[in-house]
Amino acid sequence: MSPRIVALSTHDIRFPTSRELDGSDAMNPDPDYSAAYVVLRTADGVEGHGFAFTIGRGNDVQTAAIRALEQYVVGRDVDDIGALYKDMVYDSQLRWLGPEKGVMHMAISAVVNALWDLKARIEGKPLWLLLGELPPERIVDLVDFRYLSDALTPAEALEILRRAEPGRRERIAHLREHGYPAYTTSPGWLGYDDDKLRRLCQEALGQGFKQIKLKVGASLDDDVRRFRVAREVCGDGFPIAIDANQRWDVDSAVTWINALKEFHPHWVEEPTSPDDVLGHAAIARGIAPIPVATGEHVQNRIVFKQLLQAGAISYLQLDSARVGGVNENIAILLLAAKFGVPVCPHAGGVGLCELVQHLSMFDYVAVSGSMENRVIEYVDHLHEHFTDPVVIENGCYTAPNAPGFSARMRPESISAHSFPGGAVWRES
Amino acid sequence: MSPRIVALSTHDIRFPTSRELDGSDAMNPDPDYSAAYVVLRTADGVEGHGFAFTIGRGNDVQTAAIRALEQYVVGRDVDDIGALYKDMVYDSQLRWLGPEKGVMHMAISAVVNALWDLKARIEGKPLWLLLGELPPERIVDLVDFRYLSDALTPAEALEILRRAEPGRRERIAHLREHGYPAYTTSPGWLGYDDDKLRRLCQEALGQGFKQIKLKVGASLDDDVRRFRVAREVCGDGFPIAIDANQRWDVDSAVTWINALKEFHPHWVEEPTSPDDVLGHAAIARGIAPIPVATGEHVQNRIVFKQLLQAGAISYLQLDSARVGGVNENIAILLLAAKFGVPVCPHAGGVGLCELVQHLSMFDYVAVSGSMENRVIEYVDHLHEHFTDPVVIENGCYTAPNAPGFSARMRPESISAHSFPGGAVWRES
Repeated sequence: MSPRIVALSTHDIRFPTSRELDGSDAMNPDPDYSAAYVVLRTADGVEGHGFAFTIGRGNDVQTAAIRALEQYVVGRDVDDIGALYKDMVYDSQLRWLGPEKGVMHMAISAVVNALWDLKARIEGKPLWLLLGELPPERIVDLVDFRYLSDALTPAEALEILRRAEPGRRERIAHLREHGYPAYTTSPGWLGYDDDKLRRLCQEALGQGFKQIKLKVGASLDDDVRRFRVAREVCGDGFPIAIDANQRWDVDSAVTWINALKEFHPHWVEEPTSPDDVLGHAAIARGIAPIPVATGEHVQNRIVFKQLLQAGAISYLQLDSARVGGVNENIAILLLAAKFGVPVCPHAGGVGLCELVQHLSMFDYVAVSGSMENRVIEYVDHLHEHFTDPVVIENGCYTAPNAPGFSARMRPESISAHSFPGGAVWRES
Repeated sequence: MSPRIVALSTHDIRFPTSRELDGSDAMNPDPDYSAAYVVLRTADGVEGHGFAFTIGRGNDVQTAAIRALEQYVVGRDVDDIGALYKDMVYDSQLRWLGPEKGVMHMAISAVVNALWDLKARIEGKPLWLLLGELPPERIVDLVDFRYLSDALTPAEALEILRRAEPGRRERIAHLREHGYPAYTTSPGWLGYDDDKLRRLCQEALGQGFKQIKLKVGASLDDDVRRFRVAREVCGDGFPIAIDANQRWDVDSAVTWINALKEFHPHWVEEPTSPDDVLGHAAIARGIAPIPVATGEHVQNRIVFKQLLQAGAISYLQLDSARVGGVNENIAILLLAAKFGVPVCPHAGGVGLCELVQHLSMFDYVAVSGSMENRVIEYVDHLHEHFTDPVVIENGCYTAPNAPGFSARMRPESISAHSFPGGAVWRES
């Protein structure tokens, strides 16, 4: 089979989730979960799929940014992923639009992830296993260490990967038998009333989830009341995280979070701007021992590096589709391992659960080698649109068996949700 | 006159500067200076112009991002700039594409700057004067203090502005008589040979510039040789800054810069990633007393805040068209004043000199109240395409008299450089 890529096509796909207030939080009252979707095709007709996740308006701009990358990909060989990734990141003209952040970087993420989906399909393996079986040297070659060497050198990365090598086979078997622990955010959206919150907390416990998460930050009185409801249902000692979605300045974060101390938050997520490394560090000091978590909006490995250097986060929440795709996420997993900080990825949206499970499972097999204190976020939205949706059993992600990155949306879902011409939008 | 905006239109404008190696540096070997250009029009036919500066590829994506903002602007009143700015920044769906960084934020910058160009034209004043005559309370109202309050509160901003109020009239007169000091980067592009460097240094001295700047970072041997040439021509004591355009990691920056110590760099600009606050701080410690400068790629006020909090920079180089336009730049000028760090703006590219002179002059009149240790970058490219080009006299920017933000490109320049259909591109 020829691994030569002959075509790149895009779709602007949007789901009208704002109609039900699914996904409502303190900063995002009415998201329409969307995907700027890319399909790569080889000369043999094999396809690789990827996407940038957005929440509605601007998905057309994001899709245009992906199309701007066509010239880097078409005509190239899928086995060149490492070089292709750097060619896109270091195109000197495109780089001005970031560098390595925002719309242009998310576009690179979508294309890189599609390349890995394609590669894993050609190899006939799920991505987590394909990556988890690579020799340490090959994994190091996939990483761009630029701007990281004050925190992580290639030699240190190699040492981390070699240390994890002996137990790979047992951990692969463990994943296949038990899966990877999940937590659920489904009970905690701000748009839900207390009865729905109580019912969904009970369901989450019944389904075996290891943790739940509540959105906070719109009203302190509401947060106290809702946290009390959740604590009553879940009991003392059950991990309940809270998520402010960037709502606060530094001082107000400290005050607000300390007012919720009696409920023992498992972590506080995104207390302030994702750009504010020093702010996160100040908040972490001001609310200790409550841990700080962040990552879904962190733009690249350079900001993650600093969050770790500053001791600002106790949990690192990587996102599968914001930084530069699989390659940059391998760098981030290695950084987290170096600093001994557990990675608990961001998921939800549309398709993020499908992607991110592969990264956590790869981390377990070949990088950190540990599941301790680690959970993958789970939100039960929109999985029915994927050809290989995540499978949750007893509160765990089961290890995917199908070849690829689980990134492929069903053709009829793509067609119905295309914006603005798809059936879902024409009827609205 | 009605200040109601009835139309937003865009142009993808590119100049083939890569053909001459103008603007070549260690990270940008072949830029085609470009503008994603926006025109706002009122019911009465008055126009406001603005643009995001890019260096070629991706200017189409940038232009698409500006078009995505049409719905926020058309139908609104130009006097609503403050509210309009926040509506764009805090649109919850568009915000996901940043937040406040990259393509989407640069688009907001272009629109905000066009609004100010329009406002100043309606008022019949150059922007620097319009802003410099506003009451302190009105200026504070233009600023978004979110994520800044741990470093700068509205009350502190008001105090800074009030402190500068008594001398405004004298400083306006001083600007009109003497202008604002400039430095030139024209001699220092990497693509030029030593003879051209020597000749351009001599010209810069002859023209009365207060400082020059050399690009560095591609080869240490070349940098030593070129710095020696420049030092020979300019003499001891003349300020010569160097600019690495993000070339180094932290440790290599320290080593490389210290190897140039004997030539007494006036500052070292962009030694590493613009996202690396802690890295800049580590470099500043490692090369003291050589000062660090950065800013042209700093994405927003939140990163500038941290650079100041960390003591990472001795000069703040704001850019007129990357952060969220005039409003966010007022926040940045206030932050710099709070921390006592001089602002020496980035310029060059296409139209950046035209815009940024207004911000420095406003800073002098109403914020810092000082010109001490401050210069505005000047590059002698592409000014002929503007209807109100900068005027340099005796190495100083003369104070603009024409109403507006000097942002307007000549219609024939827009037409000839439109990409890909304009005459300049059709002939290539």
